[in-house]
Amino acid sequence: MNDTTHDELAAVLAAAASAAAPLAALRPAERAALLRAAADALDAAADELVPIAIAESALPEPRLTGEVARSSGQLRLFAEALEEGSYLEVIIDTADPDAAPVPRPDLRRMLVPLGPVLVFAASNFPFAFSVPGGDTASALAAGSPVVLKAHPGHPELSRRTGEVLVDALRAAGAPEGTFAVVHGMDAGTTALVDPRIKAAAFTGSVRGGRALLDIASTRPEPIPFYGELGSLNPVFVTQAAVAARGEAIVDGFVGSFTLGTGQFCTKPGLLFLPEGHGLEQRLVESARGVGAAGMLNDRIRAGHAEERERLAGLSQLRTLVRGDDAEARVAPTLLTTTAKELLADPDPVLQECFGPTSIVVEYSGPDELRAAAEAFGGNLTATVHAEDTDAGALSPLVDVLRDRAGRLVYNGWPTGVAVAWAMHHGGPYPSTTASIHTSVGVTAVRRFLRPVCYQNTPQALLPEALWDDNPLGLPRRIDGVISQRAL
Amino acid sequence: MNDTTHDELAAVLAAAASAAAPLAALRPAERAALLRAAADALDAAADELVPIAIAESALPEPRLTGEVARSSGQLRLFAEALEEGSYLEVIIDTADPDAAPVPRPDLRRMLVPLGPVLVFAASNFPFAFSVPGGDTASALAAGSPVVLKAHPGHPELSRRTGEVLVDALRAAGAPEGTFAVVHGMDAGTTALVDPRIKAAAFTGSVRGGRALLDIASTRPEPIPFYGELGSLNPVFVTQAAVAARGEAIVDGFVGSFTLGTGQFCTKPGLLFLPEGHGLEQRLVESARGVGAAGMLNDRIRAGHAEERERLAGLSQLRTLVRGDDAEARVAPTLLTTTAKELLADPDPVLQECFGPTSIVVEYSGPDELRAAAEAFGGNLTATVHAEDTDAGALSPLVDVLRDRAGRLVYNGWPTGVAVAWAMHHGGPYPSTTASIHTSVGVTAVRRFLRPVCYQNTPQALLPEALWDDNPLGLPRRIDGVISQRAL
Repeated sequence: MNDTTHDELAAVLAAAASAAAPLAALRPAERAALLRAAADALDAAADELVPIAIAESALPEPRLTGEVARSSGQLRLFAEALEEGSYLEVIIDTADPDAAPVPRPDLRRMLVPLGPVLVFAASNFPFAFSVPGGDTASALAAGSPVVLKAHPGHPELSRRTGEVLVDALRAAGAPEGTFAVVHGMDAGTTALVDPRIKAAAFTGSVRGGRALLDIASTRPEPIPFYGELGSLNPVFVTQAAVAARGEAIVDGFVGSFTLGTGQFCTKPGLLFLPEGHGLEQRLVESARGVGAAGMLNDRIRAGHAEERERLAGLSQLRTLVRGDDAEARVAPTLLTTTAKELLADPDPVLQECFGPTSIVVEYSGPDELRAAAEAFGGNLTATVHAEDTDAGALSPLVDVLRDRAGRLVYNGWPTGVAVAWAMHHGGPYPSTTASIHTSVGVTAVRRFLRPVCYQNTPQALLPEALWDDNPLGLPRRIDGVISQRAL
Repeated sequence: MNDTTHDELAAVLAAAASAAAPLAALRPAERAALLRAAADALDAAADELVPIAIAESALPEPRLTGEVARSSGQLRLFAEALEEGSYLEVIIDTADPDAAPVPRPDLRRMLVPLGPVLVFAASNFPFAFSVPGGDTASALAAGSPVVLKAHPGHPELSRRTGEVLVDALRAAGAPEGTFAVVHGMDAGTTALVDPRIKAAAFTGSVRGGRALLDIASTRPEPIPFYGELGSLNPVFVTQAAVAARGEAIVDGFVGSFTLGTGQFCTKPGLLFLPEGHGLEQRLVESARGVGAAGMLNDRIRAGHAEERERLAGLSQLRTLVRGDDAEARVAPTLLTTTAKELLADPDPVLQECFGPTSIVVEYSGPDELRAAAEAFGGNLTATVHAEDTDAGALSPLVDVLRDRAGRLVYNGWPTGVAVAWAMHHGGPYPSTTASIHTSVGVTAVRRFLRPVCYQNTPQALLPEALWDDNPLGLPRRIDGVISQRAL
């Protein structure tokens, strides 16, 4: 795939800027129809797109088929949210001439789109965090045109998926320029500093994300940069859980850290087990039982191998299972240490290793477990395996994890991020660059919207969302109380 | 006032960090009680505090008394919002084993406080945007301890108001370290890079705010920086409005741009009138009728004089009323130009002049008015004066302004920011550093909260807000529908 040229990028940015006003002016239900058209087109193209994705990503067919369904389902969930209308956050305070210390005017607030959004696609989900993924879906839902910088790991898939979406949006009546795919890091960084781009989203590494964050933050007009970067996703297992179902936990852990050849943002990077867990043999057998598999591309495979060797070479860590790379296929690696050794020098160990490598950490008791939890920085997820009898003693650990992670998983595994109203896929830095936002779930749309308040403005000049008679049937907070009533 | 020493600051930061967990753990109604205690104490201390404020700010007594009432009312409004509970944004998706492409777990999302917040107080509102102001109130409401960096313009007032608040919070049972006032820019910038500070808020100049934003953004762990910086607040008057009530508009404009000696973030910096408006004499008389008044301090008076002289020296601008500074009292200045001249070289003219100076711009017709509106960058407000007969023709202008301002005022004046659910006090850069947020109004609390999602977590480990039986009576979105019902 050739990189997007300067002239091509200029045309894309101009078109996105031109699309901003007409796209924002559509009613929520009209934008919902665009999202559904995109979803239908994506599903219809699955048979063509999935083979391209297999060829470019080395991921298996069922996983990629599932990703298409996840992505189209996500577009449809945002369509539902648009029709429901809460996302506009309409708040109306009627005039109060008796308010003290000064009379209050009629105030009507709603959210409006920020303008064109630049999305940097990820490598590891060629659909769900790439061209038709959550950042695209949520920005389009907000009413912001999207310029998507393709990931070089799946260029042809990106090009072709982009065509499918552009054609579907055009056929459904979207303004020209609503969506475009560009290729090459030059195009990405050039777009990132273009004044017509009003926000950016990114999924990838800490190093890459931080570099782009710094560019976005130091523009003459700084813009929000929503980056989802690195996460260790630690898993904490109590003594009672080991006693009740230790082997099932081991198997679940191995399944989770090797899922998709360990190429998940939510891959569990550390498993905390109590001393004397007696599960070492099961860990070894379970990990050895997972076959070698391809990784997304050579660069990622080399990066994994380098980080795996660095970890294996640390004096704190011992190797339980050594997974070599043969013929570009990678087998799982399992390392081990103790919480004491980890706490003596946590930084070298607490680094994300993107791929099928994880670390088992043995702890001596609840206090040491909590101390280990406190050693973590920001994470997307933290997981606890426990029994009902643990509940009281677990609360302090859960509080520690709540301060460090965006999602707390109980007796499950962090891989697998449900697309739902309540999902939060985010967390304190460095797991994201903006911990108050999510990149998955309905609330992801909030990233691309800003409030506007109309004061004493006549109906004829107000957006429909703020009219007295509530023609869009929106839930609105009127004088502090949410309802769908007319004024 | 001595600057806070290194050791004193260390103690303040340690106390704030210690207070974070217990403050966050309070029920919303318990935090509401703290806010009400602070409000009551502030009101009770008004007779002591207002004279200090008069001495340090040169602002008149009725204005400052009103500011105290505004500030205590603001604390009470946040208390109401805590009790109402929507601010927690609770979303619950019940488990769905039949969800496609994968089963959905039970997901429960709510917002939790970010942790200690650093607030840089403003000079121009010694109460409402200072120690007991909106940033303090919204951060405390969120459950974040506050370290307030006092503005050097009113040090004794800041010290004493801080004591009043600290004593009230302590007596009401707040954790030690919930609130503290520090003095000196060294303390401010040292705190800004301290890893225990998780967000910062600021009201002040573009230059100062941008410098602090850059510090916050380039920390090893970048933090959100909510700065409210500069705004021109243009006012656009139609021909019909001039015909109907030209003289009243002039008088309102002069009242607004000279209110508080022009020291409002929302001071109207430009008034657009149609050619041949015939109001020049009225403008001159009205502006001359406003007496000279003191400014907040010598630095601000000198800054205003310098910017006023720079503007008066521009070839595009002519002087209608020249207000000199005599005996440290400043009289209003009114300059004028045409939209044609403005559009030929907008940058030198479109700079905020903090103080009682404004510019009248004559435009030739609706197209030129819209072109002039398009020359503006981000603003807190934009104002239109029009008649009902203008409505259709005005829509394009209002759309242009909507893209450039956070609040649109119709047939009113931008000075005066109501504290209410629907208020938005924000706008595109450079009016703020984060246009998706507000520093006034109930939604300001959102700046200091981040989501956490609990997956398949038993009741005993969940916060009360997420329990099945909804003991806090919160509005919650359950499977997409908002209600106060139990699960």
